[in-house]
Amino acid sequence: VSRRYRLAVLIEDADRARVWLEALRRAVPDWQVDDGRRVAAADQVDFVVLWGRAEGLSRFTHLRAILSLGAGVDHVLRDPDLPREVPLIRMVDPGLACGMVEYVSCHVLRHHLGAPSLERSQREQRWTTVTPQLAHERTVGIMGLGAMGSACATRLTQFGFQVVGWSRTRKSLAGVTVHAGRHELPAFLARSEILVCLLPLTEDTRDILDAGLCARLPRGAAIINAARGEHLVEDDLLAALDAGQISGATLDVFRVEPLPQGHPFWQHPCISVTPHVASLTRPGSGAQSIVRSISSLLAGESPPGLVNQEAGY
Amino acid sequence: VSRRYRLAVLIEDADRARVWLEALRRAVPDWQVDDGRRVAAADQVDFVVLWGRAEGLSRFTHLRAILSLGAGVDHVLRDPDLPREVPLIRMVDPGLACGMVEYVSCHVLRHHLGAPSLERSQREQRWTTVTPQLAHERTVGIMGLGAMGSACATRLTQFGFQVVGWSRTRKSLAGVTVHAGRHELPAFLARSEILVCLLPLTEDTRDILDAGLCARLPRGAAIINAARGEHLVEDDLLAALDAGQISGATLDVFRVEPLPQGHPFWQHPCISVTPHVASLTRPGSGAQSIVRSISSLLAGESPPGLVNQEAGY
Repeated sequence: VSRRYRLAVLIEDADRARVWLEALRRAVPDWQVDDGRRVAAADQVDFVVLWGRAEGLSRFTHLRAILSLGAGVDHVLRDPDLPREVPLIRMVDPGLACGMVEYVSCHVLRHHLGAPSLERSQREQRWTTVTPQLAHERTVGIMGLGAMGSACATRLTQFGFQVVGWSRTRKSLAGVTVHAGRHELPAFLARSEILVCLLPLTEDTRDILDAGLCARLPRGAAIINAARGEHLVEDDLLAALDAGQISGATLDVFRVEPLPQGHPFWQHPCISVTPHVASLTRPGSGAQSIVRSISSLLAGESPPGLVNQEAGY
Repeated sequence: VSRRYRLAVLIEDADRARVWLEALRRAVPDWQVDDGRRVAAADQVDFVVLWGRAEGLSRFTHLRAILSLGAGVDHVLRDPDLPREVPLIRMVDPGLACGMVEYVSCHVLRHHLGAPSLERSQREQRWTTVTPQLAHERTVGIMGLGAMGSACATRLTQFGFQVVGWSRTRKSLAGVTVHAGRHELPAFLARSEILVCLLPLTEDTRDILDAGLCARLPRGAAIINAARGEHLVEDDLLAALDAGQISGATLDVFRVEPLPQGHPFWQHPCISVTPHVASLTRPGSGAQSIVRSISSLLAGESPPGLVNQEAGY
């Protein structure tokens, strides 16, 4: 990469914008990296690095690509300011998948070991001896087998868990029983004692975690949603928890974030709320990943994370 | 194994005794397996399978071996009824290590991801955005590198954690920085942001988790004790938590079990209490393990788990 390319960072939050400006300037010291909110000659910018909404993007008239700092681009694609003809690349950062593997492993193990019920016993000072099942006696279902879902599924097989996966198109993954398409969803759900949602948000997957889905899971199943709040029909989850069909849920994402004060999830005894921390793009490795994507694009290749705007991810 | 050997199961709890009688009869249908609490002709019994105290053991005068159902044999060795000349074999069950790996991974990840603090935020309905460190930026220290400690250390390296280990005699373990002996303990502790105790209980290790040890850990370290309650000086832990030197603890074992009502651990906001469930011997795989040990002993070999009564484990 010889030419002096121009990058603009378009992030609303000033602190976050500064962190990314610094990280990118360190990663490509010979390029010009500007704050996109107040850049001069926007028409000469080659690449925009974007977090959140695309407001102001229309000023950048000669872009070669737009790079999103998140793994999910549903909100970017919904934005009327997004120029459809410019390649959109979402973050495929090894650090992003590492964080997700840590989060999902932690919370799958928590449900597997009955930790929520042991935590209630502690609050009541009750010594309850139980013999938890071993991982090889437990089936975990992963919805979505992209970079994150595949990495999580593989780690869980290392614990001995039976792992089943489900995705739109059929994937192949060592040690994982794979289901594909809507017609195979019931068979997948029937086996998933712990269900992990890592799907992209599309019109097909919005509201997929609903009453019908809960009813098809084994009684007492647990649900972990680390994808998007819009995947989950909140009232359906609350009803399934009340009915005992679902025993517990761990939720990292919500329809409204931050989760509003007084929302019933906060104080529900069977719901763990985490503040959208399952998988965060780290500036250091994230900047490297952006540079790799741009280099690959300039070399005429199709970089990992290039968004299929039809499919929506 | 051709002769019709005689086994006696010596377990105080009647339910647990019945479960093990059934499991062993299934495992060796051609041997005679009796309840040791009411066996006739105790002097003709070849092997005793023991859980808990050894009371009544002196009646078995012609034993070839005693097989303990637990991985820890400190309480058996303290028992005056234990015949010192009979080989004592402790449980080395793959299921036992699997359960421990699941427990330790779950609780290391919980501390690593700041789950205890996120749980407090949830109770206060506070949305606290944090960027947790990734596993490769975190060092976990494992005290005790026997079957359990080694299995846990290896699994943690798969997450990318920096893993350091400490044991009485020097071990070698791929991907793990190993320390040995008392003089290397300070160097090991100085690196351990999350400390996991999986030591055998001996006169050398009793009370090892004390004020001096806490002071040598990095400030804000977490402690997980899944070994024996007697490893931990309870008041020292409480003081180190009050001082902020230790940020949290997960305890599965206690000096008195069940943990008595009103004990300060139950309601401490930084302590997770679990009721001695980290690693339980499962009758199915445990019975197989006992049969393997006996066969190995009869073949003149030294079975895994043969206790060195001098060393105490």
